[in-house]
Amino acid sequence: MSKTNAGNYFEDFTLGQKIVHATPRTVTEGDTALYVALTGSRFAVQSADIFAMDIGYPSAPVDDVLVFNMVFGKTVPDISLNAVANLGYANCRFIEPVFPGDTLSATSEVIGLRELSNGKAGVVYVRSVGANQTGETVLDYVRWVMVAKRDASAPAPEPNVPDLPDRVAPDQLADRLPPIQRDAYDPALAGAPDMWGNYEPGEKIDHVDGMTVEEAEHQMATRLYQNTAKVHFNAHAQADSHFGRRLMYGGHVISLARALSFNGLANAFHVAAINGGRHVAPCFAGDTVYAWSEILEREEVSQRQDVGALRVRTVAVKNADAAGFPHKAGDDTYEESVILDLDYWVMLPR
Amino acid sequence: MSKTNAGNYFEDFTLGQKIVHATPRTVTEGDTALYVALTGSRFAVQSADIFAMDIGYPSAPVDDVLVFNMVFGKTVPDISLNAVANLGYANCRFIEPVFPGDTLSATSEVIGLRELSNGKAGVVYVRSVGANQTGETVLDYVRWVMVAKRDASAPAPEPNVPDLPDRVAPDQLADRLPPIQRDAYDPALAGAPDMWGNYEPGEKIDHVDGMTVEEAEHQMATRLYQNTAKVHFNAHAQADSHFGRRLMYGGHVISLARALSFNGLANAFHVAAINGGRHVAPCFAGDTVYAWSEILEREEVSQRQDVGALRVRTVAVKNADAAGFPHKAGDDTYEESVILDLDYWVMLPR
Amino acid sequence: MSKTNAGNYFEDFTLGQKIVHATPRTVTEGDTALYVALTGSRFAVQSADIFAMDIGYPSAPVDDVLVFNMVFGKTVPDISLNAVANLGYANCRFIEPVFPGDTLSATSEVIGLRELSNGKAGVVYVRSVGANQTGETVLDYVRWVMVAKRDASAPAPEPNVPDLPDRVAPDQLADRLPPIQRDAYDPALAGAPDMWGNYEPGEKIDHVDGMTVEEAEHQMATRLYQNTAKVHFNAHAQADSHFGRRLMYGGHVISLARALSFNGLANAFHVAAINGGRHVAPCFAGDTVYAWSEILEREEVSQRQDVGALRVRTVAVKNADAAGFPHKAGDDTYEESVILDLDYWVMLPR
Repeated sequence: MSKTNAGNYFEDFTLGQKIVHATPRTVTEGDTALYVALTGSRFAVQSADIFAMDIGYPSAPVDDVLVFNMVFGKTVPDISLNAVANLGYANCRFIEPVFPGDTLSATSEVIGLRELSNGKAGVVYVRSVGANQTGETVLDYVRWVMVAKRDASAPAPEPNVPDLPDRVAPDQLADRLPPIQRDAYDPALAGAPDMWGNYEPGEKIDHVDGMTVEEAEHQMATRLYQNTAKVHFNAHAQADSHFGRRLMYGGHVISLARALSFNGLANAFHVAAINGGRHVAPCFAGDTVYAWSEILEREEVSQRQDVGALRVRTVAVKNADAAGFPHKAGDDTYEESVILDLDYWVMLPR
Repeated sequence: MSKTNAGNYFEDFTLGQKIVHATPRTVTEGDTALYVALTGSRFAVQSADIFAMDIGYPSAPVDDVLVFNMVFGKTVPDISLNAVANLGYANCRFIEPVFPGDTLSATSEVIGLRELSNGKAGVVYVRSVGANQTGETVLDYVRWVMVAKRDASAPAPEPNVPDLPDRVAPDQLADRLPPIQRDAYDPALAGAPDMWGNYEPGEKIDHVDGMTVEEAEHQMATRLYQNTAKVHFNAHAQADSHFGRRLMYGGHVISLARALSFNGLANAFHVAAINGGRHVAPCFAGDTVYAWSEILEREEVSQRQDVGALRVRTVAVKNADAAGFPHKAGDDTYEESVILDLDYWVMLPR
Repeated sequence: MSKTNAGNYFEDFTLGQKIVHATPRTVTEGDTALYVALTGSRFAVQSADIFAMDIGYPSAPVDDVLVFNMVFGKTVPDISLNAVANLGYANCRFIEPVFPGDTLSATSEVIGLRELSNGKAGVVYVRSVGANQTGETVLDYVRWVMVAKRDASAPAPEPNVPDLPDRVAPDQLADRLPPIQRDAYDPALAGAPDMWGNYEPGEKIDHVDGMTVEEAEHQMATRLYQNTAKVHFNAHAQADSHFGRRLMYGGHVISLARALSFNGLANAFHVAAINGGRHVAPCFAGDTVYAWSEILEREEVSQRQDVGALRVRTVAVKNADAAGFPHKAGDDTYEESVILDLDYWVMLPR
């Protein structure tokens, strides 16, 4: 039997299957420094121990999207090494905060399977859980990917598509977020005066800034997450692919969009959940990423007086600024510049 | 009112105005590792805890130019987002040493304003102060930048140009530098035998080595400092600019010049002050940076017997070696290869 | 006398000469994070404190090849700044494990000299030793390099070629490796079921994955090691060289080959020794590196029941996959794609 991992094909997955992913990872201040260098993130809570401690954290927590990308990376060798497309995310909740020194590990369960009618591939739904060294859940999410079949003649499984929520309910957000000392939260240090109550559903914000991505940058980010998907690293093999070149990892686009959103959402200090996300078009080295956001909902959370939740749609575009809020071109098509359509909840001080 | 930061224009500044800059930052061993990876710096005091502790520090201090760039980065969104040009530095003193774990924050005061005669822009003089988590000043400097006016018809302020010293006086240097255990300072480990007394005013040193800079490198360095100046990151917007491409952050050129100066000034373990600096020409990805230095003064400091100060001019050049000590071509013009003319004080063991 | 280091020429070396190399270095979690970002390494022992502690380490040790590259880097300014070619390695043993916080320093002894018959250069054999802050040896190896003469008329030294072992004997391996708690070693977390006993001499493994290297990446890696060899960094000077461009540091190719070998040797958690290595051809930015391995020997080590040793040949190739196990084209020539031929010992749980 081969000693190398060729990844799972569609027919290798069974409903209810549980997978322990390899390579637990201690997150360090080295990882957080690299994350700043690769994204330019400026949220004060994640940047400064003192700021974080003043408002109620034991130290500066690790950026939520960094946690997401690290957990996601572990699932790749088992779930998506033979993926044709990463189709969507749902019900993604950031639970226990992560701090440098914590060790993350990941497990997944197959919660749905549906073969395509052409019999060449199928959609696999997995619920993945990231845990810290004490077994607490730090992240829990569902994603579905289209995975190739090894053998087109392999029998199709019973179709089983899980029922997934359109959004995480507000009462499921931020359970484990420490009480925030609102008086200690200094808006000048955080970068903007606008708190939860200053945003209105329907409001759109152009995040103004653009960030050009180099091959070395997206490769370093993706390797930092120990994500092994071949399309991101191998120019030699990609030369024969549809695009003829390396593709940027979609999680890096999410990181960039989140970092760019600081300019307009500086006090959105915690990503509490991702309701859904779609990588609308590929991004390549040399592309310049911009972003805009729309406030979808403003909700109180579990009677907390310290913080509130905003449901935000952040759209990342490439090689065009976001001043015109480019989005859909039709029911299920997008304007040409759009690369990411992300629906998520953030927490802000009230 | 817009929730995004469009930066201040010339008419937004008033004399005496005080600004608290956003995004305090805990400096970590991740930052120092990245700094080595991006500059190749080899000074033993900053590289090795044991070396630093043997000579009197509690642990390896953070590179002074990294501290400068981090503090400078915080000032950008408020001071120079609409800068036409970064004109100069003066009276820059590195005071309290910084160690991994320290949290840096920055404030500025407007100390001078002068509108240009064309009425389209003005020069803003700011004194910026970087402090650590206990409020001690780690860095104090003046810089002046030419900032665009939002509205050319806005009235000009009373011209007010601060009186700035040509150089930091030797008795203002290294107040907070710990006593250096001279016997424990091992020149073999530090990399060269030449101490303070071995340098003579007028002496010129070609630092020999050259370093080519990639887009990914200067972008990562500049994002590491959370510097948001658009010209460094956005190839899409820069395509329509005068240069048609991204510009390298001048502070990265200072970092490279300082790192290159190791070969010839290996025992200059601490930058105590920057007397003045001029970014003579822009630097772009693909350029190769060389450097040479001239010893301008050799001074005792506050009757200290352990260390002495050298005032050094370091000139960085691009795409040409520095063997011929290229510098000025006229009273106020420079030879074509010159990109940086930096006048500063370093401390060496006696 | 010049204050800059021009490096040693062949006639500057004498048999028995001892050299203390400059720039001790505290290895930090910043270095290990960058190493993951630059290589994508996924070995669980080096990735996760908890995994390492569960099996008997005090915390996650630093990757052995990172240690090698850091120690090697220190030797460059004294040994190989004027090297024409890096010819080989022998008898390289990784002894005391290294942990973040340890400070590495390096010394070398000249153990052989042989002038070339053309009188223009000579081969220098050095034994280099890396030590930690308590003086324990972490690494001990011999390398030989061809070094240019400053003056072709300088007299040749008495030829003296040290007797070097073909391989490190199994009883010299892993003396200081802690006892491994075999029951706690979880193969699912480590990434593969195959332990020491599952490999057979003669077995060949294609590591499948390929990794394209950018200029920014190999420059950052090489600067991280404070390696000052000019050919890696200076595009301006290299434009006039034989290859016309920057060369990738060979140690980065070793790092990549080791990281790629995870896919097939996931439980080879410790490099115990390098028996020999040859950089067969240069590697440049834009090249895609693949690797394959052959198991040369399987040996018990000092009656240990916890771990065993595999002697492995790992061959790195560029711009061609390794499925055909490309290697030698003749007695002393290699197939065109081969860039590295490395013979080393790894330890695996039994």
